[in-house]
Parts: sequence; C-alpha cells; structure tokens
Amino acid sequence: MTDTTVTVASCQVALAVGDLAANRRSLRSAISEAADAGAQVVVLPELANTGYMFADIGELRSLAEPVDGLTVSEWVSLAGEHNLIIVGGFAEAGADCEVFNSAVIVDASGVLACYRKAHLWNTEKADLFTPGSGTPPVVDTAVGRIGVMVCYDLEFPEWVRTAALEGAELLCCPVNWPLYPAPEGERPIEVIKVQAAAATNRMFVAAADRAGIERGQDWLGGSVIVDADGFPLTTLDLGVASVHIAKLDLADARNKTISELNDVHADRRPELYFEAERRAHGTT
Amino acid sequence: MTDTTVTVASCQVALAVGDLAANRRSLRSAISEAADAGAQVVVLPELANTGYMFADIGELRSLAEPVDGLTVSEWVSLAGEHNLIIVGGFAEAGADCEVFNSAVIVDASGVLACYRKAHLWNTEKADLFTPGSGTPPVVDTAVGRIGVMVCYDLEFPEWVRTAALEGAELLCCPVNWPLYPAPEGERPIEVIKVQAAAATNRMFVAAADRAGIERGQDWLGGSVIVDADGFPLTTLDLGVASVHIAKLDLADARNKTISELNDVHADRRPELYFEAERRAHGTT
Repeated sequence: MTDTTVTVASCQVALAVGDLAANRRSLRSAISEAADAGAQVVVLPELANTGYMFADIGELRSLAEPVDGLTVSEWVSLAGEHNLIIVGGFAEAGADCEVFNSAVIVDASGVLACYRKAHLWNTEKADLFTPGSGTPPVVDTAVGRIGVMVCYDLEFPEWVRTAALEGAELLCCPVNWPLYPAPEGERPIEVIKVQAAAATNRMFVAAADRAGIERGQDWLGGSVIVDADGFPLTTLDLGVASVHIAKLDLADARNKTISELNDVHADRRPELYFEAERRAHGTT
Repeated sequence: MTDTTVTVASCQVALAVGDLAANRRSLRSAISEAADAGAQVVVLPELANTGYMFADIGELRSLAEPVDGLTVSEWVSLAGEHNLIIVGGFAEAGADCEVFNSAVIVDASGVLACYRKAHLWNTEKADLFTPGSGTPPVVDTAVGRIGVMVCYDLEFPEWVRTAALEGAELLCCPVNWPLYPAPEGERPIEVIKVQAAAATNRMFVAAADRAGIERGQDWLGGSVIVDADGFPLTTLDLGVASVHIAKLDLADARNKTISELNDVHADRRPELYFEAERRAHGTT
C-alpha cells in the first residue's frame, strides 16, 4: 500500500519590507527549521521576497523578481537539499513592467507551477499589481496533489472549488492577513473561512501568514493547517514568528463521502449555479 | 431615517415524528415565546410539520401537507396575530405523489415564497423526496429582504451566493443537523460553515435546528444567528429546546465593503468561475 501521509509546515515569518537578502535569510531559516521537523511540504507567506507595504509602484517594481530570480531559485535549491515541496508567494516581475502577486510550487526539479493572484486586496488593485487571469494550478507532486492560491483568493468559495474540483488534496495558501479585531473569544474570521473551505471540499488547507508589524501594518499571524473535516491540526500562534507542523493523511481528501449517499462534489448542482450566475450577471 | 433593525428568533424545537398535531402545538408555543420576546422574524426547523425519521415513503406521503395545509395556514394566522414573518420547513405534498422538503416565508398576508430543497441529504434522496430545481427565493418583507434555503443546501457556497446576489440581507435556514462528534473544544462544523457563508457575503444568517432524539437519531441542536461579519450573535445551546433571539441591523448587510477598495460581491470574477465550471463539467 502506498503511504498517503505527508508532513506539512506553514511558516509564519517576520519579513522586512524592501530587504530581499534579509527576507531570503529569514525564509531559509524557516525552511530549515521545517525540514528538521520532518516537513515534506513547506508553505511560506504571500510576497515573501519583498514584504507587503510598498510606498508606491516604483518601490514595488524595483523589488519584484522574475520567476527565475534569486528568491525562487533559492527555494528550488533548498527543495533539492532537503527533499521538499515548497509553496511560497513572491512579487513577480512580468513583461512590460507589470507586477503580479504570485506564488510558486517548486521541488528539486524546478518550478512546477506559477500562479498569479486573481482577487486583489485593497491598494494592490489600485496601482500596484496586475490581477491574474488563470485558475489556481493543481499539480501532482511526489507526496500528493497540491493546489495553490493567494490570500484574498481564499475568500471566494468559487475559487477554492475550482482547485478542489481539479483534485487538490492539499491547498497551500501564502497569505498576508492584516490584523482586524475579532470579538472576544472568537477565532479570526480568516481562519473560519479556511475551515469552511476545507470542510466544504473535504480537502486539507495550509495557510502560511506573516508575523510582526511592517510600516505600521500589524499582521494577524493566523497560520493554520486544517484537516478535510475542517478542523485545525495546528494551534494558532497569533502574530508570533513560528513554524506550524502537521501530519496529514491525504487519503482523507480523496474520499469525498460524508454519508452513505452524499458526496460533497457529486452532490453539487452546477447547472443550477450556472443558471443563477447567468441571471445575476447576464454572462453566458 | 428608516429603522433597519430587526429582532430575529431561531426556534430550536423538539418534534415528534408523525404527530402533526403535537408538532403544530410545539411550534405554536415556540412562535409565541419568540413573539413575546420581541421577535419580528421567526425561523423554525426543517420538516417541522412531520419530524424527520420516516420509516418509508408511505409514512412520509401520509404526513406531507400541501402548502395550503393546516401547518402553513396556522403559521399565516400566527404571523397575523403576532405581526411576524415566519420562515419554516415542512414536508410538502406535491402533485403525482411527489414529496418535497420545502420551506416557506409567510406573513399575515399569506405565503410570500415556497422553496424546495435542492441538495438532498442521505436517504432523503434515495426514496423519499424529489429535489427542487428552483433557486432560493429572496423576498422583500416589511422588515427587510429575506432569503431561504434548507439544511444541506447551506453547505454549497454557490447556493448561498445565489441568495446573496439576489440581495438577501437575512438568510433564514430551517435545518435538521444530525449529531456528529466534533473534536474537543471545537464548534460544530455546521456552525463554522454558517459563519463563513455570512462573512463571505456580508449577510446575516439565522439557522433553526432540532432538539432531542428521534427514532434513535440524535440532533445537534446547533441553532445560531450570525452577523454580517460572520460572528455568532447567539449562544449555542446544543441539543436543548430553546428560542435564540438576536437584534440585527440589516444596514450592515447592505454594505458589502470590507476595505477602501474591496467589496465582497464586486470583487468576484464570475467569468473565470464560469470557465472553470465549463472545464470541470463540460457544461455550457
């Protein structure tokens, strides 16, 4: 029998906006810590090469790297050195001065997929990033079928569904969640949405968030790994740099059955959803 | 200025399978309690006229009522008496011996909408109910714009979205959640999904569940009313017959803004979702 278990790490890293070399060092250190703890898949935050709080598009352009730049190349090397899959976010320099809020899935052989965030958050969309127009990639890796999307993308259940329907067993999400207050005793709503995304699709979800404060922006630091029933396998460590590790059995995500006669995907009524979308948007 | 606040009750009722008269009495009592507490909208459980654990289709057919039967007619009377909107589930006798797992929205003037559950749970789909094929109705009432869907429907974010895009400010959900164990200290996943449904759409959601045990089936009793940020306004009272009351300001649900430049509906990329559905299903 094939072993379907996999150890996953979500690395909650403190980054320094604008300091590419320092960020590579911080990420290298988190990746090593995760590898030492037995991780086979390592998830890094959104925009992990650059940080997030850019002064303007000029600063962002000066920092963005091509997919074969130093940051992603180093992740490929580290994936080889530690026998890992690494999923991480980075500011990607595209053609024509465009910049994308991207994420890659890499292993020792190189970049398996590069995805560009389709749902942009706040000022990202005003003057910084070009939105992606491709669906979230889902790729077969040595340890299982892995999908990727970035931060605010996760808040669109339709988007999560596309990855799940493509067979993602583990959805990896680099995020930068700004800190918003939650009522006393309540789990952050971003984490609740991750739980629902996982349970709705019977799919594991690993989110890697930021730690610390950056140019006045405090980050939630809500990194979490959630099982296919929608329950967290890791403990929240809000705001603190930390590596969150969980051992998953991906076989759970291959079984979409939730009762004798129910299957979370087969029970969908896509023809009705299409019809409703058409009515709402006049799209065909 | 128009008052946009509304007091809502989710009634967690213990029902007796097969005893229509006893169930009408229990519902009447819960409705009165809710009205006395100031409720303007009262949500009742799924299949509130009949109970749930039918021995077979014969028993179900013998209990099902038309939409103008005794149960719904009594709700219309009580809506008039107490000046309420009532949303409740009932086994609906259709034409040709078909039975639907339906829910109505009623006020003093009569039935404003009747919806037939589109996503059937377990044995419901084997030999008991015919699935509905209409989208969830959303109607303007004296107190705000109200949508309705039933139990397992809620677990399909696409379905929740149709109601939200139709402008539902409050989604009312008659449910019968079977009891499944959750890990120690975790909120039931059904409630997590309600929270995510609300937050994803900035819409209030009120779910009314069952209490007690019925022919060996234990019910979760997870009735909850959740605000447009996705946080519960009521306290869970798992398994116990109880009326849950919350005062909502529906203005919160009219504002879909979550940052300077983000709007949970306007930020959708429906053309990409369409494309992904087409690829997954070959549907056009």
